[in-house]
Amino acid sequence: MLPYKNLIIIDKKNTLPVYRQVSLQFISLIQEGKLSPGTLLPSTRVLAFDLQLHRKTIVAAYDILVSEDWADNLPRKGYRVSPDLPVVRPRSYNSKKLSPFANNANFDFERLEPLVHQVISLNKGPLVIDDGFPDISLLPTKVISEQFKKSLDNAARGKNTGFNLNEVSNFRISLHSFLNRTRGIDMGIENLFTTRGAQMAIYIAASLIIKPGDKVVVSEPSYFIAEALFKKLGAELIRIPMDADGMCTEELEKILKKDSIKLLYIIPHHHHPTTVTMSVERRQHLMQIINTHNFAVIEDDYDYDFQFKYDPYLPLATGDHGGNIIYIGSLTKVLGAPFRLGYIIATEEFLKAATTLRTLIDLKGDFIMEETVAGLINNGDLARHIQKTNKLYSQRCDVLSDLIIDELGDKITFTKPTGGMALWLKLKPEYNLLQVIKKANLKGLTMTGSSYCVGKDAHFNAFRFGFASLDEHQLADAVHILKKQ
Amino acid sequence: MLPYKNLIIIDKKNTLPVYRQVSLQFISLIQEGKLSPGTLLPSTRVLAFDLQLHRKTIVAAYDILVSEDWADNLPRKGYRVSPDLPVVRPRSYNSKKLSPFANNANFDFERLEPLVHQVISLNKGPLVIDDGFPDISLLPTKVISEQFKKSLDNAARGKNTGFNLNEVSNFRISLHSFLNRTRGIDMGIENLFTTRGAQMAIYIAASLIIKPGDKVVVSEPSYFIAEALFKKLGAELIRIPMDADGMCTEELEKILKKDSIKLLYIIPHHHHPTTVTMSVERRQHLMQIINTHNFAVIEDDYDYDFQFKYDPYLPLATGDHGGNIIYIGSLTKVLGAPFRLGYIIATEEFLKAATTLRTLIDLKGDFIMEETVAGLINNGDLARHIQKTNKLYSQRCDVLSDLIIDELGDKITFTKPTGGMALWLKLKPEYNLLQVIKKANLKGLTMTGSSYCVGKDAHFNAFRFGFASLDEHQLADAVHILKKQ
Repeated sequence: MLPYKNLIIIDKKNTLPVYRQVSLQFISLIQEGKLSPGTLLPSTRVLAFDLQLHRKTIVAAYDILVSEDWADNLPRKGYRVSPDLPVVRPRSYNSKKLSPFANNANFDFERLEPLVHQVISLNKGPLVIDDGFPDISLLPTKVISEQFKKSLDNAARGKNTGFNLNEVSNFRISLHSFLNRTRGIDMGIENLFTTRGAQMAIYIAASLIIKPGDKVVVSEPSYFIAEALFKKLGAELIRIPMDADGMCTEELEKILKKDSIKLLYIIPHHHHPTTVTMSVERRQHLMQIINTHNFAVIEDDYDYDFQFKYDPYLPLATGDHGGNIIYIGSLTKVLGAPFRLGYIIATEEFLKAATTLRTLIDLKGDFIMEETVAGLINNGDLARHIQKTNKLYSQRCDVLSDLIIDELGDKITFTKPTGGMALWLKLKPEYNLLQVIKKANLKGLTMTGSSYCVGKDAHFNAFRFGFASLDEHQLADAVHILKKQ
Repeated sequence: MLPYKNLIIIDKKNTLPVYRQVSLQFISLIQEGKLSPGTLLPSTRVLAFDLQLHRKTIVAAYDILVSEDWADNLPRKGYRVSPDLPVVRPRSYNSKKLSPFANNANFDFERLEPLVHQVISLNKGPLVIDDGFPDISLLPTKVISEQFKKSLDNAARGKNTGFNLNEVSNFRISLHSFLNRTRGIDMGIENLFTTRGAQMAIYIAASLIIKPGDKVVVSEPSYFIAEALFKKLGAELIRIPMDADGMCTEELEKILKKDSIKLLYIIPHHHHPTTVTMSVERRQHLMQIINTHNFAVIEDDYDYDFQFKYDPYLPLATGDHGGNIIYIGSLTKVLGAPFRLGYIIATEEFLKAATTLRTLIDLKGDFIMEETVAGLINNGDLARHIQKTNKLYSQRCDVLSDLIIDELGDKITFTKPTGGMALWLKLKPEYNLLQVIKKANLKGLTMTGSSYCVGKDAHFNAFRFGFASLDEHQLADAVHILKKQ
């Protein structure tokens, strides 16, 4: 007899009735081949004693096995595993049978590869350089938790189950006023649509616009996840170089003279990855181009709220573009990873299609998180938090910039940005960035920021060093480790 | 002179410096045509007095206008709006210029229509019949808020910014053990992937599988949002009738004799919308079919946790299918709208592609919400909540069923389900459901549940009546209003 005492474990916290737990575990034993077809099961009396259960519970469990053809009940002999079951039933998700979704199967599904800039496998050490994320230890956690509690209690009391995507939520109203105030974008509430972080905003906008074969212009280098998305959608990518004034609009004009494009993806403010902000001349030139050609523009302005000093560059979307520009932003850069909240600003017609697509993707938003952030906006907590963190990040940017110049000036070149949360550090060609990342990892430093040192982007030999989430000591420690590589 | 005192409003809570707020508002006045090209601006002294600001602040604001070419500084005359600006700049998002995203524009983007089963426009009255949602007033809000606070504080203290989708999160570990315990699905952690609600799980799985022209089998009627998704992906839908034993697998077999299909979408347990549970014979037949043909299966088991009495139907995914079945479920039905958490169980190879696709869609999950729910699972709070609500929903199901038979038995037919949160009520042909919904709405009853009374589904003349979220008085009130229509 099998050691049922150890094989069949009753979990009192489990919502399943005990007799069902017993029968399920017998089925597992049979499926795993531990109980072969034809095996006699222990008598109900013996098993009840072994498992410290009532005999009726065991009878109920056995009866289920019989009713489901796993076992049969022999007169005067008791229960046994059905003799005509297939011998061993393998774990279906790791079966040796060829699944349509196996590596070597011939089934036609989309085998998307992992994104190449993230595949360097690193151990998580005590010190992490990220891509430019906020320092969440600065979050007003008490205020946020109280706001969450209030939102949840209100919803529960009123049996309020939130808003459908085609309704105007409290979050959308608060966000609308926040964006009008901070960006100077002149829009109605019907021009604002909320998403899960900026990524979903890019996904939705690009999915509605791009058809296989369409030409899409991006900068070189560009935000690699957006690039991967455009490629997945079947776009033919045209890459336009960046210089110290941003994307070279002269190149764009040249392309448009002989060819038409469907979409331009641009990050004019603190460009990702290079942190460059587009100059006034280039902006004016770009607006001219937008107004004379028929293509759509995604303006990704993920980093707008972090400007260390007065910066006269308003979003392109504030200008005269007749609705061609789809403006995308995010609160995740302000509040950090716990809050994946982004938005799209566009014409009403475009957002109607966006609403339907997001319904198909995820039905609706996280109601209580959205209400919580609406509260933070309305109480001024969000504005206060931005002011406070901006000051600190500005200092950290100074500290890191000085450290790099002093300690790594012979190996690294960079231009100090006017805001944001990261430096873009270019290694001189004689140093191999991939090797530096791997060696630094052995010293306890994990560089998880976007690094442009593999594939077609290998020649950049450059990486993002997020300074916002590290204090001055951590910044110094990280630079010292890098210096020794 | 314009009434600048009323036109230019300084917001002390705003993070923008005051001089920038002033310049931004001047730019708006110019863009809106309120300040014409060439107009003289008030002297810095006068405006400083009007706005109760320091004169230097006004000078700084004007200097920005000059540096951005909105204004110029005339010797001995002061500042004026640049005379060579375009006269009026319209609101770009509602411009009269033809945007590529206007209704009548010729630009080729995907103009997704709103979903037809949700377009009946209703006023929100005091009494709402939903599609079958949990009663969130039963949530243990205190426990949840405490768990949220703990998770947020922990994350902030440790500067923990969460998990990437290719990492094993605490939530995934807790969910894995919960699912093994309750579903008897024999799988490893690599076979489980988390999403935003079941909808994103369906979206991801279907997007990876369906290519334009692929044949996809669904039931008739079927969950209309899944159907809309398959159509958007270009599938050719084949609809197979439902009867009291579930989807007619005999029909499926007939189709497969002459044709090959790419995907079967099935809800064997408490089918949406009809609430039918598939019989044992049909299940066995379906498993046979799955094992002799080469197609993928999405098993949508959104409602598994709500079974009013012992129900021997385990998911199809627990059987021997060699990895063909993609199993989808959700915690949103358990915890309600505040928690949009779903999952996919599938082969490791399939989930690798799912991970990349979800990265493109929304990068990562809501870290703190996921940690919060992991806590609820580990503490047994989730299991307790399921047990408690199941008991109450079972009572509400009884109450509503009796009410319908007593009060509406002459107009409505239905089969009482063995679990779940809704009844599927069929109106006799002489009653027009669309009219009933509209008239009831005038009496303060809002029927937001899926109603099958428009388009190709009009002949069903049936709707879902969610009973879980209403107490006995509300159920009685709703039935009384319906009786009078």
